[in-house]
Amino acid sequence: MEKRELLYEGKAKRIYATEDQEIVWVEYKDSATAFNGEKKAEIEGKGALNNGITSLLFSKLQQSGISSHFIKSISEREQLVKNVSIIPLEVVVRNIAAGSLAKRLGFPEGQLLKKPIVEFYYKDDALGDPLLTEAHINELAVASSEEVKVLRTKALQVNTVLSSFFQKIGVLLVDFKLEFGKLANGDILLADEISPDTCRLWDSETKEKFDKDVFRRDLGSLVEAYEKIYAKLKETQHV
Amino acid sequence: MEKRELLYEGKAKRIYATEDQEIVWVEYKDSATAFNGEKKAEIEGKGALNNGITSLLFSKLQQSGISSHFIKSISEREQLVKNVSIIPLEVVVRNIAAGSLAKRLGFPEGQLLKKPIVEFYYKDDALGDPLLTEAHINELAVASSEEVKVLRTKALQVNTVLSSFFQKIGVLLVDFKLEFGKLANGDILLADEISPDTCRLWDSETKEKFDKDVFRRDLGSLVEAYEKIYAKLKETQHV
Ligand SMILES: Nc1ncnc2c1ncn2[C@@H]1O[C@H](COP(=O)(O)OP(=O)(O)O)[C@@H](O)[C@H]1O
Ligand SMILES: Nc1ncnc2c1ncn2[C@@H]1O[C@H](COP(=O)(O)OP(=O)(O)O)[C@@H](O)[C@H]1O
Ligand SMILES: [Mg+2]
Ligand SMILES: [Mg+2]
Repeated sequence: MEKRELLYEGKAKRIYATEDQEIVWVEYKDSATAFNGEKKAEIEGKGALNNGITSLLFSKLQQSGISSHFIKSISEREQLVKNVSIIPLEVVVRNIAAGSLAKRLGFPEGQLLKKPIVEFYYKDDALGDPLLTEAHINELAVASSEEVKVLRTKALQVNTVLSSFFQKIGVLLVDFKLEFGKLANGDILLADEISPDTCRLWDSETKEKFDKDVFRRDLGSLVEAYEKIYAKLKETQHV
Repeated sequence: MEKRELLYEGKAKRIYATEDQEIVWVEYKDSATAFNGEKKAEIEGKGALNNGITSLLFSKLQQSGISSHFIKSISEREQLVKNVSIIPLEVVVRNIAAGSLAKRLGFPEGQLLKKPIVEFYYKDDALGDPLLTEAHINELAVASSEEVKVLRTKALQVNTVLSSFFQKIGVLLVDFKLEFGKLANGDILLADEISPDTCRLWDSETKEKFDKDVFRRDLGSLVEAYEKIYAKLKETQHV
């Protein structure tokens, strides 16, 4: 496979064309950003860790029958994925109150939710990724009501699989963000990444954070936190 | 009926007990507040105008088969209403993009929506009245899914009646906020007020504003704007 022209550069990844229109080449960057791009840093090793963790998690999901854009990892920082047209919704699943949900509902961080909450945010940096209700999604016409149902169902399936997977390594899956895309035939496919950049991951006992909050809140070394999670995840592969 | 102890003082009204547990005595204040209480003023005449306009609109709704807490106006600034336990949700209906919806979706103010949008905000000053999705409402347990459906249906019925009523007097009902309460038997009843404090009302032709945005955005005399709407509304009563 050949890496051709840069199609899109985001905050965390570069997407390149390949000779196959149906496949794109993803390169994970070392950039860390938070608060809608207000806080920024270059952190050596982050790209490789997120590539490794995302590849491992998408493989796990595939083994559990949840398909995604992921084809294979091809270098420390690169993977091949199916080319999709991204639906501009950030689909967030939450098991435990943290971040903006804790603020919105006036809950203490760490409060267990009665059941998982699925939220949709409009993927639009200029608008600050605002929370949307289904009525807003209909008005924006970014997804049909039928598609919103599919997104919610798939997101909850991912949550079930990943929560129990993380539980096995002593980690709480507090919340996470997914992106989905459409194939040419209209099928909806899980896409983007699943990494400590897009999940909140806490040690089940100590509540130590292994995710981007380490960077957002200056809690220590991001690379060390991500390495810990990656090491725990890799252990499960030999069991 | 006797006015007894003050039960609750809000930003716009005082609620007093009466000798009848099922009835409370509402006094409309001259206070104007905006931006969650950050901007404040005393505006002589506002209380009387909101009492008059709310009484007229609740009467119109009742004539159209939409019941509410409203019993009767008993003085320039006072009315008797049925005592309800207020559901802490602000139910907002929007026909045209304005205010926070325009900002959230990146729409220009004045853009007609494809169909009316119903939104729920958590009535909690300390949290800044945040937008809620149905999943948040379930988690907070402030209303059941069944009740949310009732609120949405009732809010859309109010919208249909009021939109056509305002249209007759050359006014666009851009959006408005409702509150609902529960009677002892669990029945849900439209409550609170419907006034230029809680609606966006624009002249259909000139788009002149006759609502609290006049105060929020320093667009002129609030009392004159509210008087204009009240005069237009009263004209219809003689037709
Ligand atoms: N399979 C895919 N096909 C096409 N685009 C994708 C795919 N997976 C992810 N993307 C998109 O690649 C872009 C780059 O990712 P990222 O750097 O995370 O961007 P952002 O700054 O928007 O978060 C994003 O717009 C993301 O939605
Ligand atoms: N029929 C009713 N019975 C009991 N309380 C009511 C009724 N109608 C409105 N209220 C409540 O009266 C309070 C005073 O009104 P207001 O001054 O507008 O308060 P706020 O500052 O909360 O907007 C509000 O909490 C409102 O929800
Ligand atoms: Mg991204
Ligand atoms: Mg009020």
